[in-house]
Amino acid sequence: MEIKRINPVPRWSDATIYNGIIHFVEVPESDTKADMTGQMQQVLEQAELSLQSAGSDKSRILSVTIYVTNFADLDAMNRVWEAWLPNDCAPSRACLKVELVDPDYKVEIAFVAAQ
Amino acid sequence: MEIKRINPVPRWSDATIYNGIIHFVEVPESDTKADMTGQMQQVLEQAELSLQSAGSDKSRILSVTIYVTNFADLDAMNRVWEAWLPNDCAPSRACLKVELVDPDYKVEIAFVAAQ
Amino acid sequence: MEIKRINPVPRWSDATIYNGIIHFVEVPESDTKADMTGQMQQVLEQAELSLQSAGSDKSRILSVTIYVTNFADLDAMNRVWEAWLPNDCAPSRACLKVELVDPDYKVEIAFVAAQ
Repeated sequence: MEIKRINPVPRWSDATIYNGIIHFVEVPESDTKADMTGQMQQVLEQAELSLQSAGSDKSRILSVTIYVTNFADLDAMNRVWEAWLPNDCAPSRACLKVELVDPDYKVEIAFVAAQ
Repeated sequence: MEIKRINPVPRWSDATIYNGIIHFVEVPESDTKADMTGQMQQVLEQAELSLQSAGSDKSRILSVTIYVTNFADLDAMNRVWEAWLPNDCAPSRACLKVELVDPDYKVEIAFVAAQ
Repeated sequence: MEIKRINPVPRWSDATIYNGIIHFVEVPESDTKADMTGQMQQVLEQAELSLQSAGSDKSRILSVTIYVTNFADLDAMNRVWEAWLPNDCAPSRACLKVELVDPDYKVEIAFVAAQ
């Protein structure tokens, strides 16, 4: 079975699709100086586009790992997250504090979704 | 193909099931003041219930990511982990030190299992 | 459907294979005193062997989570990574700074691949 890759560059692909499963990772792209609310909005808007490109949508996410850099931002992150998800469609979720490659990043999310 | 979700709330589902694969995440629920041995026992008892609800059992785990907050707890964590797993049924495993959302949590585990 | 496990020991398996999907995790095994370039080379050589044992190869990786312990090593890590991947075969990728169980480890990678 063939693997479909969206926008492969030497370092990563924006998404991979195989046997009905989509793997993709989002970090804020348009304004990394935004606060957590703004960064989450960017990440989730990008996720919608990634899901759409892969033939899915935000009701079909199976698992997320949410990486944040400061737990003081947790409430803001959760507010945007819960407002974005459709009813009864939440994925399994882990949420951790780590450091991210760009010191301006406040959040990075790894997604596994069904097509 | 339909996605089955166990106990979906606005923030997460206890587990998602799709095409024979189960994603779920456990943190200690009954006593977050317990030491690592106690917290691991809680996490693994909960995992058994989650696996059962999803039509699986602890012999069918494919992958775990074990997040701990203090490597001084590593031996205690490993003792409970190895005692719990059936013979010849260990999953692929990553183990990392991060910070977790509740400062009392000593461990959080993300599971991928087969039904 | 049966789960195939490569080298199961009480703590982990080197890889699990189920329904065409391979989960495995690599840390440097032969020389943990090596610098990031040397540790990444070990990790990626081991990954090639794991993929081969599981009936796959490095063109079929779906997702990686790269854990590093020092972002000063990021450029060295990326150089080895990009040189290793075949053209147009990059997986989805998250890269985080955490602490790893052996203080000498500079990198650990969790892989999801297709057979």
